[in-house]
Amino acid sequence: MSSDPQTISSGALRDFVARALQTQGVPDADAIKVASLMVEADIYGYGTHGVFRLRQYLARLAGGGCNPTPNVSVEHETVATALIDGDDGLGHLAMGAARDLAIAKAREAGIGWVGVRRGNHAGPLALYVRPQAEGGLLGMAAAVGSANHVPPYGGTDLLLGTNPIAFSAPADGPDPFVFDMATTVAAMGKIKTFLQQGKPMPEGWMVGRDGKPLTDPARKSEGFLLPIGGPKGFGLSVAIGLMAGVLNGASFGSDVVNFTSDTTSSTNTGQFVMALDPAAFGMADDFASNAARVFAEMRASTPLPDHDPVRLPGDGKTAAAEARRKDGIALNPALCRDLNKLAADCGLAPPFPELTENP
Amino acid sequence: MSSDPQTISSGALRDFVARALQTQGVPDADAIKVASLMVEADIYGYGTHGVFRLRQYLARLAGGGCNPTPNVSVEHETVATALIDGDDGLGHLAMGAARDLAIAKAREAGIGWVGVRRGNHAGPLALYVRPQAEGGLLGMAAAVGSANHVPPYGGTDLLLGTNPIAFSAPADGPDPFVFDMATTVAAMGKIKTFLQQGKPMPEGWMVGRDGKPLTDPARKSEGFLLPIGGPKGFGLSVAIGLMAGVLNGASFGSDVVNFTSDTTSSTNTGQFVMALDPAAFGMADDFASNAARVFAEMRASTPLPDHDPVRLPGDGKTAAAEARRKDGIALNPALCRDLNKLAADCGLAPPFPELTENP
Repeated sequence: MSSDPQTISSGALRDFVARALQTQGVPDADAIKVASLMVEADIYGYGTHGVFRLRQYLARLAGGGCNPTPNVSVEHETVATALIDGDDGLGHLAMGAARDLAIAKAREAGIGWVGVRRGNHAGPLALYVRPQAEGGLLGMAAAVGSANHVPPYGGTDLLLGTNPIAFSAPADGPDPFVFDMATTVAAMGKIKTFLQQGKPMPEGWMVGRDGKPLTDPARKSEGFLLPIGGPKGFGLSVAIGLMAGVLNGASFGSDVVNFTSDTTSSTNTGQFVMALDPAAFGMADDFASNAARVFAEMRASTPLPDHDPVRLPGDGKTAAAEARRKDGIALNPALCRDLNKLAADCGLAPPFPELTENP
Repeated sequence: MSSDPQTISSGALRDFVARALQTQGVPDADAIKVASLMVEADIYGYGTHGVFRLRQYLARLAGGGCNPTPNVSVEHETVATALIDGDDGLGHLAMGAARDLAIAKAREAGIGWVGVRRGNHAGPLALYVRPQAEGGLLGMAAAVGSANHVPPYGGTDLLLGTNPIAFSAPADGPDPFVFDMATTVAAMGKIKTFLQQGKPMPEGWMVGRDGKPLTDPARKSEGFLLPIGGPKGFGLSVAIGLMAGVLNGASFGSDVVNFTSDTTSSTNTGQFVMALDPAAFGMADDFASNAARVFAEMRASTPLPDHDPVRLPGDGKTAAAEARRKDGIALNPALCRDLNKLAADCGLAPPFPELTENP
């Protein structure tokens, strides 16, 4: 069996993902929307949050935890805010609608802030802030994480997720500022990679219930992820939980459902998307050039010994995405085989026929 | 000379601060506004950002970097956003106005986001988010730091400040959620305290230009503060600089003026204040009780070995503030003597006559 990455065109990958979602009862238009966003995640290099998640999404559709035919609707609305009810559908549908509505409101009222309840995992938050920056706006988005891996600071009960937050802004030059982070030092996905590779984790990623550093990735279930900056990351994570969860009537704390292990329950995932228009602050023409001026100063900074030159979050993404749109997306062979298996389960042709095990 | 903390009533401290500002040409009403907020910082326990800063503010008023008679005005406005020009006045004036306007807009439009340019150091951000929570709203505020002590991640040029951010939310019980953090591991004030006490700093607070840990606080000028979570704190700090600085036409990057060493230049400090109304999301009645439910779960978490019980940011502040309002504010004797010296320089009676050195 090949152990090389396999390349597939973005169009073929999108078609496959959409058809797989359709086999679980997702209507054509919604399936294409979600598949486009999932493939967009891979195009921009967010490999852990793109097509890799298809298995999880199909399992939750099959299990009934995710509604294949949601009625995504605006429940509350002002000129500058809204609350969207995702009706337990695939998370990309509610978050895509939230992003578009936030942008429209920002053009109208200077700012748009749209919350989501009864959402689901929606891929990387970058998907919901990059379009703001490409359209000359600033963006922000955050989510209550889809499983609790983190205790409150100084405690031992798992009541917080990785609660990510993302920001974006336009800047003259090839790349807008697009920054997407978990509020934990390491994400669970990174720890799973260390486990696969049989490497110990650096101190500071996890602690055990004894409060001592936990560096063996095989023992991850005995410990907890640590927030960045100790009590600071904890406070930030709680603030995100309040704005993305409690404000929207969504889950936060003990009522968060583990998205991976539970395929049958509504997760009531909470998120929000924000857009801000520089024109409302008298900065319509100058924001992108002023941001680029500061970014140029930062990139020109003398690096620390043995460090690469300074990069801003988002640097290089535009060119990398263009190359993947043109030349295709390289996926690791384990994922390609998994997509082939999913295809077989769904009664679809394998997206990577060259990897099928039949002679 | 006494080395015990000295207690002064909040009213007497406020009167003294207001009279000292008046000697530098600040009109009565503005002096009382600023003095009230400065004393409020000490009442809530933000000692490094309260009356302790009076010497700095008086020096900038005397030096011409801070305008004693600003015309704080709204430059741009929508139903949900505004830009306030602080006219280089004391920072509390523009930020107090921004907070009040953000709250009024949130009541009207669901959200209010008000930026500030040509502001100045305004004390702890908590002053500009706590009232939102006390009024049933969520709050957020951030600022471009008043001096560059931090390089971009991997670089060596000081282009970032401690760029703080604060959040607040109502919660049933004695204390709202009020969380105010710098995006660096340690604040410069904390390092100055270690220097005074002759103690080495923990690794992780600062690095030298060689990229190696710097733990001798006497060598602080040879190194830089580190952001929380490495590249994450860097990205967060840049996002704050874009939203609080560039968006408002305020300083960010190399044009940030060192507020402490330069008393003659306009700093063009940038900040923003946000308010969000849960009623716009259908959560008028439930937000505070739902937040309190999650906070109770967190406080009930079994502590890590040798850890105190879990506390939420803001816990205990209400009772501590009430006690200080009733019984007075205890200030360390070095600060009391410094206030006495400022009084002598301004031709005012000393606020701590028992500490005067005359026999």
